[in-house]
Amino acid sequence: MEPERTMKEITPRSVDFSQWYLDVVLKAELADYGPVKGCMIIRPYGYAIWEAMQADMDRRIKETGHVNAYFPLLIPKSYLEKEKEHVEGFSPECAWVTIGGGAELEEPLAIRPTSEAMICSTYAKWVQSWRDLPILINQWANVLRWEKVTRPFLRTTEFLWQEGHTLHETEEQAEEETLKMLGVYKSFVEEILAMPVLHGRKTDSEKFAGALKTYAIEALMGDGKALQAGTSHNLGQHFAEAYGIEYLDRNQQRVRPWSTSWGTSTRMIGGMIMTHGDDNGLILPPKIAPHQVVIVPIPPRKGDWNEAVLPKAREVQKQLRAAGVRVHLDDRDQHQTGYKYADWEMRGVPFRLELGPKDIEKDQCVLVRRDNRSKTPVPLAGLERAVPEMLATFQSDLLERARKFQADNTTRVSSYDEFKQVMAEKRGFIVAGWNGDPAVEKRIKEETKATIRVMPMGDPIEAKCVVTGEKGREVWFAQAY
Amino acid sequence: MEPERTMKEITPRSVDFSQWYLDVVLKAELADYGPVKGCMIIRPYGYAIWEAMQADMDRRIKETGHVNAYFPLLIPKSYLEKEKEHVEGFSPECAWVTIGGGAELEEPLAIRPTSEAMICSTYAKWVQSWRDLPILINQWANVLRWEKVTRPFLRTTEFLWQEGHTLHETEEQAEEETLKMLGVYKSFVEEILAMPVLHGRKTDSEKFAGALKTYAIEALMGDGKALQAGTSHNLGQHFAEAYGIEYLDRNQQRVRPWSTSWGTSTRMIGGMIMTHGDDNGLILPPKIAPHQVVIVPIPPRKGDWNEAVLPKAREVQKQLRAAGVRVHLDDRDQHQTGYKYADWEMRGVPFRLELGPKDIEKDQCVLVRRDNRSKTPVPLAGLERAVPEMLATFQSDLLERARKFQADNTTRVSSYDEFKQVMAEKRGFIVAGWNGDPAVEKRIKEETKATIRVMPMGDPIEAKCVVTGEKGREVWFAQAY
Repeated sequence: MEPERTMKEITPRSVDFSQWYLDVVLKAELADYGPVKGCMIIRPYGYAIWEAMQADMDRRIKETGHVNAYFPLLIPKSYLEKEKEHVEGFSPECAWVTIGGGAELEEPLAIRPTSEAMICSTYAKWVQSWRDLPILINQWANVLRWEKVTRPFLRTTEFLWQEGHTLHETEEQAEEETLKMLGVYKSFVEEILAMPVLHGRKTDSEKFAGALKTYAIEALMGDGKALQAGTSHNLGQHFAEAYGIEYLDRNQQRVRPWSTSWGTSTRMIGGMIMTHGDDNGLILPPKIAPHQVVIVPIPPRKGDWNEAVLPKAREVQKQLRAAGVRVHLDDRDQHQTGYKYADWEMRGVPFRLELGPKDIEKDQCVLVRRDNRSKTPVPLAGLERAVPEMLATFQSDLLERARKFQADNTTRVSSYDEFKQVMAEKRGFIVAGWNGDPAVEKRIKEETKATIRVMPMGDPIEAKCVVTGEKGREVWFAQAY
Repeated sequence: MEPERTMKEITPRSVDFSQWYLDVVLKAELADYGPVKGCMIIRPYGYAIWEAMQADMDRRIKETGHVNAYFPLLIPKSYLEKEKEHVEGFSPECAWVTIGGGAELEEPLAIRPTSEAMICSTYAKWVQSWRDLPILINQWANVLRWEKVTRPFLRTTEFLWQEGHTLHETEEQAEEETLKMLGVYKSFVEEILAMPVLHGRKTDSEKFAGALKTYAIEALMGDGKALQAGTSHNLGQHFAEAYGIEYLDRNQQRVRPWSTSWGTSTRMIGGMIMTHGDDNGLILPPKIAPHQVVIVPIPPRKGDWNEAVLPKAREVQKQLRAAGVRVHLDDRDQHQTGYKYADWEMRGVPFRLELGPKDIEKDQCVLVRRDNRSKTPVPLAGLERAVPEMLATFQSDLLERARKFQADNTTRVSSYDEFKQVMAEKRGFIVAGWNGDPAVEKRIKEETKATIRVMPMGDPIEAKCVVTGEKGREVWFAQAY
């Protein structure tokens, strides 16, 4: 047998990070391009990751007292126009349905770019009394934003997400909800995707169209650029006013409620890829890996592997499956072992389990870690206890490695020259002072491509503005996706 | 305290079945109308039912070897037009996006009415060799069909569904898949929704646009009309030809695969409502009831219920929850007990658990069945074993009741006069002979509103045509939703 070409080629990260990303997405079969620009196809392997993420996020959303519902895809133009900032922000990105059932429509319908308009106008019907509050509803849905430059998962015209929309009696309750969900996002992303994030508030120029305050979590990608991985908005009374939501309060007065909205999307998959992947492809955190372990049986030099190794491999698979491990057996006979190794490495499976005739003689197998390729012989007896432990270690090691990368790529600068130099060479996060002036923020963006990712939580930390030297507060900058 | 008005009024089924249905859907808060005609809002209580259905259906789809993926919402016009019968069937129902990102689009994009066009054109890229087959993919998605007459769940412009799309090497395998999924649908609907269904093949005039053969499951609603609750299509090679799917077979010949598609939707919720509900509202099968048991604590005549009954009620809730029962405690203090009884009856909760000071003295509670209101005192000790058994009995009783209703409303007729009389008075299923002529089928439809719901599975059963007296086969007729 000729040796197979073991790998579909992946551009090295150091050569072209952006091309590396696309290679990984396409060759690991996470996603594919569809016929409409920016509308990706999420392939089964990518979708299985999304399903695992969804299941965990959905549990967290429900544990914090929310329920799911489903609101219509199509929003009449007049509904979208009720909140002025909101429509200005989203209208240019809308796709419009103008023909339905063979006839021109009287009013164009937008495919939802987000559902505040639809949901708030519905809440206006549902809320009559303070007893109807809080309303704590989440929706899993597809949304559409007409994007000029698109990239699978990171920025797509259509994407999948969850969007929470809540109503509260008081401003404090709305703020508490906004921060609670920011916390849910932060712990989800860190615990499940092993992506360490900053969390904080957005400046006015970066906030959601129509919001009072926007909070976000921001992760640092392998190329030193930041990715906004989730947002939580305190909408104040803006939407309640625009959509006429009123209720009788505890004192029988007609008043407006306070609202919030918060969302995370398939974009997180892109962030996860760019946080952990290497030149051999994906590296998946065990908690969302479709296969946590892939068994690669090694054929005997002579004789039939159907007799020599496959029966034992199936036993091991059963043993691990019974322990709740997501395990796949690669019994394809058209591929050689080396091809399989490279294939599963590219797909980011946390552990490869090698099992050959010699291992079977010794009642053991060899577990190979995806990230550092370290090999550990493990006795078959007790494998069902050893593997879950190794998966847990792998998960926490990934988070630690990413934390270290983030720390190593965060620079505190004291002058604007240093700021510019760091942004030109090393990138990453820059911690620096800002005087609160949007004009300064804009200048920094134009000159360095860096934007303020967040203003840290808690009381502002005093720091001189890195551009003007004036009194200011510490904020975190980065170039961003 | 004044006695509360215990119920929002529901039109009796016998007065106006259609209005009864709408009353139940709206007043039990399953769904609401949205601003765009035919696009319903699925409220949290209705969506929780859908989530329970989804979870079980998804498990069945995966257990039969399928994986999930996600394909784009928007389909270019030229893609939809490739299969002639398909586009003729669906084009009139399409919603068209003509403007995106502020500009007129070069080519209009349809919001998917179904995804054969999108998925088959993608499969043409993915399939090269017989080793790539079978492809067994399912998608959970929203779809849009511009309907003239709409009704929540039963016929809506936008609806949620799952659609499976598979490719196979041989015609036999495609037929096997088509029937396998029909079987999955039948057992899901009967075991989970307690809706007994006929299954069989559709006549050519009722088949899916572009299919070789369509199979369906058909349930009988409380008003004697049938509801198609799921369809499974053997698409032959029609779509493989139209979308240019080819592969190298085991003999290195370029050949076309055989494809299938199959789907079920939120329509099943409508069917479930019309199968089980009564004049007091919904009756939910325990397997998909968001609350299987609602605890209604009965306040003491004197004294504080916070001391007298609520602590024990919380204990009971905990006890049942630990046993995996979905249990809700209605501790609202603004409503009287009678109101709560009627409220939960309307919402179809299988069992109400009454717990008052006297029950607590006797270490018992009283369980009241939603369907026949029978009351059973049950000792609190062992409640966690008694309730799951009672739920299982409730579930199977519902199915039995519906089976009996179906049997009582199925009539074998021997003349067309009898056919017309039954359809005018009693409705239900009619079993009769048909000569296979579409013109006869059409005449029957025009004169009686009845269509052939299915031709039974297996070898045709000989029967004289009920209209012409010619040789024919036995088929099942009904008026249908």
